[in-house]
Amino acid sequence: MTDSKVMNIAKKRGFLWSSFEIYSGSAGFFDYGPLGAILKNNIIEKWRNYYIIREGFYEIESPTIMPEEALKASGHVDHFTDPMTECKECMEVYRADHIIEDATGDDVEGLEDQRLTEILSENKIKCPKCGGHLTHVWSYNLMFQTLIGAKGKKTGYMRPETAQGIFIPFKRLLRFFRGKLPFGVVQIGKAYRNEISPRQGVIRLREFTQAEAEIFVDPSEKNHPQFAVFANDTLTLFSAENQMNNKESKRLNARKAVEEGIVSSEILTYQLCIAARFLSDLGIPSEVIRFRQHLPTEMAHYAIDCWDVEVLTDRFGWIEIIGIADRTDFDLKSHSTHSKEDLSVFIEYDEPRTVTRLAVKPDMKKFGPLFKGDAPKIMGALNDLEASDIQKAFEEEGVFKINVDGKFHELSPDIISFEEQEGIIRGEKVIPHVIEPSYGIDRIIYSVLLHSYAEDGDRTYLKLEKQIAPVGVTVFPLVNRDDLVGTANKIRNELRNQGIIAEYDGSGTIGRRYARSDEIGVPFAVTVDHETIENQTVTIRNRDDLKQIRVPIKDIYRVLINLLDGRIEFENI
Amino acid sequence: MTDSKVMNIAKKRGFLWSSFEIYSGSAGFFDYGPLGAILKNNIIEKWRNYYIIREGFYEIESPTIMPEEALKASGHVDHFTDPMTECKECMEVYRADHIIEDATGDDVEGLEDQRLTEILSENKIKCPKCGGHLTHVWSYNLMFQTLIGAKGKKTGYMRPETAQGIFIPFKRLLRFFRGKLPFGVVQIGKAYRNEISPRQGVIRLREFTQAEAEIFVDPSEKNHPQFAVFANDTLTLFSAENQMNNKESKRLNARKAVEEGIVSSEILTYQLCIAARFLSDLGIPSEVIRFRQHLPTEMAHYAIDCWDVEVLTDRFGWIEIIGIADRTDFDLKSHSTHSKEDLSVFIEYDEPRTVTRLAVKPDMKKFGPLFKGDAPKIMGALNDLEASDIQKAFEEEGVFKINVDGKFHELSPDIISFEEQEGIIRGEKVIPHVIEPSYGIDRIIYSVLLHSYAEDGDRTYLKLEKQIAPVGVTVFPLVNRDDLVGTANKIRNELRNQGIIAEYDGSGTIGRRYARSDEIGVPFAVTVDHETIENQTVTIRNRDDLKQIRVPIKDIYRVLINLLDGRIEFENI
Repeated sequence: MTDSKVMNIAKKRGFLWSSFEIYSGSAGFFDYGPLGAILKNNIIEKWRNYYIIREGFYEIESPTIMPEEALKASGHVDHFTDPMTECKECMEVYRADHIIEDATGDDVEGLEDQRLTEILSENKIKCPKCGGHLTHVWSYNLMFQTLIGAKGKKTGYMRPETAQGIFIPFKRLLRFFRGKLPFGVVQIGKAYRNEISPRQGVIRLREFTQAEAEIFVDPSEKNHPQFAVFANDTLTLFSAENQMNNKESKRLNARKAVEEGIVSSEILTYQLCIAARFLSDLGIPSEVIRFRQHLPTEMAHYAIDCWDVEVLTDRFGWIEIIGIADRTDFDLKSHSTHSKEDLSVFIEYDEPRTVTRLAVKPDMKKFGPLFKGDAPKIMGALNDLEASDIQKAFEEEGVFKINVDGKFHELSPDIISFEEQEGIIRGEKVIPHVIEPSYGIDRIIYSVLLHSYAEDGDRTYLKLEKQIAPVGVTVFPLVNRDDLVGTANKIRNELRNQGIIAEYDGSGTIGRRYARSDEIGVPFAVTVDHETIENQTVTIRNRDDLKQIRVPIKDIYRVLINLLDGRIEFENI
Repeated sequence: MTDSKVMNIAKKRGFLWSSFEIYSGSAGFFDYGPLGAILKNNIIEKWRNYYIIREGFYEIESPTIMPEEALKASGHVDHFTDPMTECKECMEVYRADHIIEDATGDDVEGLEDQRLTEILSENKIKCPKCGGHLTHVWSYNLMFQTLIGAKGKKTGYMRPETAQGIFIPFKRLLRFFRGKLPFGVVQIGKAYRNEISPRQGVIRLREFTQAEAEIFVDPSEKNHPQFAVFANDTLTLFSAENQMNNKESKRLNARKAVEEGIVSSEILTYQLCIAARFLSDLGIPSEVIRFRQHLPTEMAHYAIDCWDVEVLTDRFGWIEIIGIADRTDFDLKSHSTHSKEDLSVFIEYDEPRTVTRLAVKPDMKKFGPLFKGDAPKIMGALNDLEASDIQKAFEEEGVFKINVDGKFHELSPDIISFEEQEGIIRGEKVIPHVIEPSYGIDRIIYSVLLHSYAEDGDRTYLKLEKQIAPVGVTVFPLVNRDDLVGTANKIRNELRNQGIIAEYDGSGTIGRRYARSDEIGVPFAVTVDHETIENQTVTIRNRDDLKQIRVPIKDIYRVLINLLDGRIEFENI
């Protein structure tokens, strides 16, 4: 299985390994080793290049620990749960939906705990380990809980997603963007899920890295001004309809996907296209990527449309690595309700609009004598009311009672008339909709490693894209002779000083050195040989086709940086 | 106070603000806003440039949640505590050492809880708020605690430092570095301290970012091969001796600091020099930086020498922003003991050493008849023993008792002789020492903002170093005429496409636009004016001296990128 071959290299050569190994490990936690951390940083830089440099979004960084109120508002305290059951005999704990699916083959995602308990009982499902009876199903919250401060013991949680950290300071962000939609804010950082028993390596982590963008848009404007840039990109779309009808996914260009109504808007399709280009830049072949639309049953109730970007793996089948959703105004509305803060945006119309409005006209001659000193206040209070409400009260009750500073006054139809007035409104307050691409960085890294694994006869190599490979160049002496070793080390140091990650390797035979370099996906190997001493040239070997060229030492930095940045191809040197 | 002026700009303009404001905040947590996050990333990139590109260290990334065993080994479960006391009347909680220091002026850091309780009582110290009686002093652990997994309820903590994540996978790291010392590994990430009542803004955070390097060295080799690079750098050193004798700090070059024995080794001094250069690159003036040596009373018992890099602030006085310590073999030894893993390194001698060793020579003729079938096993067991121990037993007791598979055999001097033998040893196993520079990134950012604040008449600006300023260039139309606006936007977009963070500003007067640009420390402002339309030139204004030059639009990227990277100075264009 490619998975085990890749994970073996990853562990042995310093990409990824299980954390806390000397303490017998802790499931769901991984370390990025020296090569893995560079790979991860390189991938994140590519991501920033798309979202920050090209899209013009801004990054923020909010805490990973969040107070309970904020996650109560987001719905995570109540709903970020898995259904659980425990064996009454051996005390083993299970995901109830998983053991039902294993036993019956039915998909029971989203069913209530009560119903799951019934299904367990109806199907006489017992503990898979010991055959014991299972308890009632209960909801287990997946957030890591903690307490903030010594006093008062305020409950906090490790954030389940980075997104909430963007919604909460929305007012400050809106101010930064001068009150104008659309704008995008991104966050890259740790998120946490206290999985019950994670057994899928780096695919199901308790602590993982997300890169999320929250794009705040005018709900009435879901076209994208730059859509033409991506309109002809081809996407493999697996629509909800095709899933339900047991049909295949379909390759379609972005424009057609919108025109045929498969994706709900240009603005969402635009995000699918960025995701596709980003994954292509990382070297994941388009044949193993598909965009799967959420089924009506799995989509969050508030969302308009959701797509998972999935990658095919030999061990886990199709896995979700990116989620792209139109979350509507759900999050901001919810935080607004809980915090009692106004999280709306005033959207100016292109042209001010003239509207007719029913206005209240008090009869001034009667008002003064009737209410004396209270008259001005009552007229002021009338201005803040809807005329139609007063009209309705007159119709239904004959009078309208108005409360001014805690004192009620009765108004009768004979002292009030109504008049249609024209007014101009320049815009209106709306709660923005949110388009959210959410990238699971660890799974993306796994996919990159998996799909860069290549075998060619005896040779094993990672065909990592040149721009993300952790080590750019390895430098070897052909044999360990002092002059060759010295020159090789000098070249390695100079490349490093100029910012290329270069490594020296002087152990074993030259063949063994090439093999080690290939195994970690180094795109180019420079060899210092006998000819080097004579004419100051070295060979550069290309990882993918094993071709070699000879270049003068003085040109080596220029040649390599151009090769690594993709400005020239190896065969054109 | 500069602090409040800077923090006001930071909050208003999007550098930094208290987290969770709409939920009335949560002390000790800050968000980095759109400008703050770029500033932070730029500073981290500079840090990586020192430690990864130049020093050749490798970065890793380990989880922020750690299982209890690992932090038990590191000493944090037992010793990462603050002494606490609570008012029996109003239930307010205090740091016992702080209220003693406030009441008596005495430094009581490091005293036992028992002794602190006595001091409270001896000095009749009462609750500062209500005058109530205070409880006994107890140790409060500063780690955020959580539970990992649904089953078994395994205790975990949010890591108190990133360093432990480097020590734990030491064996894998050693293998990555092919078993050779010295090597350096860094980690940049979140660390956590559940402070009792943090009231010092970004200076005392419950969640903060550290950048730490752990440099593993041969304990017998604390000179640095590259020391000459920094030997003439001048450092402001405030030695423990000068602190104890109420003397001032002293400016000294690095070589003298080692020669005079003020800093314990070249390798530690080398780190002080990197820190000084890094802070200078960030624009913090050397006059507000000092290196303060830990006093014998404050230094961890296992450390050989520790230095805090401190920055002078108007609100908090001198604050520690970096700690640089020689931690010896404490951490690795401790993890080795707790995990029962061998965390030593085999260090080969430059030349194999010839040693003479006393060898045990059994008299074969007597051994066989005496011990029969057991003879070979006894001889094998003898090989594993020190000859001197046997010699000693003969001298003291006349016989030596040897245990072979649970059975004792008596050996007498007549069947054993001793002989001096020559042997060759190629090296020895040692536990490496660790040199640790530990950077508090949030405090560094605060120091950068604080010391870049400048006033010049009515003008307020941040004189941020060009390479770390969040926005590189602002582009304005002189007036809001369509052609000028269009050209300004086009220039902004092109600069951005080429990777410069450029912003357009079209609100208010040109004076107001310059002021806004200055306030967030944008180094250069480009203005599109009437002449632009005539001859395709624009002005570039230099933030620090307000000088303007005119350059053709076609040259603008080249000029700006060279200015921002510091390859040319403004006055030389």
